[in-house]
Amino acid sequence: MKKFSDTESNILEDIILHRRDVRGNRFLDKKIPKKALDKILFAAINAPSVGFSQPWQFVIIEDTKRKELIKATFRTETAKACKTFSPKRQEMYQQLKLEGIHEAPTNIAVFYKPSDHPVLGQNSMKEAGTYSVVCAIQNMWLMSRALNIGLGWVSIIDPEKVKSILNAPAENQLVAYLCLGFVDTFYDKPELERKQWEKRKNIDELIFKESY
Amino acid sequence: MKKFSDTESNILEDIILHRRDVRGNRFLDKKIPKKALDKILFAAINAPSVGFSQPWQFVIIEDTKRKELIKATFRTETAKACKTFSPKRQEMYQQLKLEGIHEAPTNIAVFYKPSDHPVLGQNSMKEAGTYSVVCAIQNMWLMSRALNIGLGWVSIIDPEKVKSILNAPAENQLVAYLCLGFVDTFYDKPELERKQWEKRKNIDELIFKESY
Repeated sequence: MKKFSDTESNILEDIILHRRDVRGNRFLDKKIPKKALDKILFAAINAPSVGFSQPWQFVIIEDTKRKELIKATFRTETAKACKTFSPKRQEMYQQLKLEGIHEAPTNIAVFYKPSDHPVLGQNSMKEAGTYSVVCAIQNMWLMSRALNIGLGWVSIIDPEKVKSILNAPAENQLVAYLCLGFVDTFYDKPELERKQWEKRKNIDELIFKESY
Repeated sequence: MKKFSDTESNILEDIILHRRDVRGNRFLDKKIPKKALDKILFAAINAPSVGFSQPWQFVIIEDTKRKELIKATFRTETAKACKTFSPKRQEMYQQLKLEGIHEAPTNIAVFYKPSDHPVLGQNSMKEAGTYSVVCAIQNMWLMSRALNIGLGWVSIIDPEKVKSILNAPAENQLVAYLCLGFVDTFYDKPELERKQWEKRKNIDELIFKESY
């Protein structure tokens, strides 16, 4: 059986630590080569999935007019979200660049496609289906970073509107809307940590032994 | 900025391709060194999270009596799940080993802890919180494999019963119950693919251009 070395597990750690959520202020106007995009999608479809159901589907969007329709739902949702914060935070929120729909040459909408038959392991926890899709997305995120390509996950959108824009089947569920492209730089820390929007949690407060 | 090489992205691909969902028939009775467990948890807390909310908590379970309580909910849920399959599949289902709660020296219950204040990016898609936790789990899965440690995700359990066994706060949501340990071997392919429970999907049927 394949045995990985300390060097190899350290490389994985390095990729994990250098991965960033990239927004439109960092993307370059440079097409992603087909070979790189194929490698990112290959990482996705080799993620774990409940009952080997592979319930993922990917819509690749590069057309400017279609991006504009997606961007419109971002604008509506971000205006709504802004109001949930305190006045001071609202000011900061409005200064943040929170998506890269137009700036990223390639957008990928990732869907959960429910199975047409019972899935092994999905009876007691139905959400295991969408969770499988998220595992695929995290594989894409890490592979993108390893290929020096930035990826940003946009969650400030109306999933039903995106479904309609992409003519998605009614049973499909939008899990993520991703923006991918080369970048001028990857930040050394998450942007919301750098800007002190949230503090990094201490690992000791997150781990419990045997029970809470 | 850190630039990764082709060698490094190929190592990541290799780890992704060799990752397996490991069950009790493969785990060895050998404790995971603290250093390895720390590295796996460090990979987890360096996952992306919506609005840098880091909404993950981890309960590490090694006590046999507590494992027995968890195993009891697996038994109940697997009996229920079995009935959802055709008679032929029921026979095969009963022959599959679907968890490794007792055999794995270390179990980890992974929870989503909702924030007590509005989270940036979580207004339009509430599920972005649990999705962040799944990103952490996929990091753990890959890091485990890179350390030659097997990980199995048990989803055939009643999450509310597990919460009660672990005395989890009411607002917490169980995302995953994981079994970790060294293994005698990692299969070359997913077990459900080897046993022809499900077929591998062709990538071409999963990718759409611009829209469905």
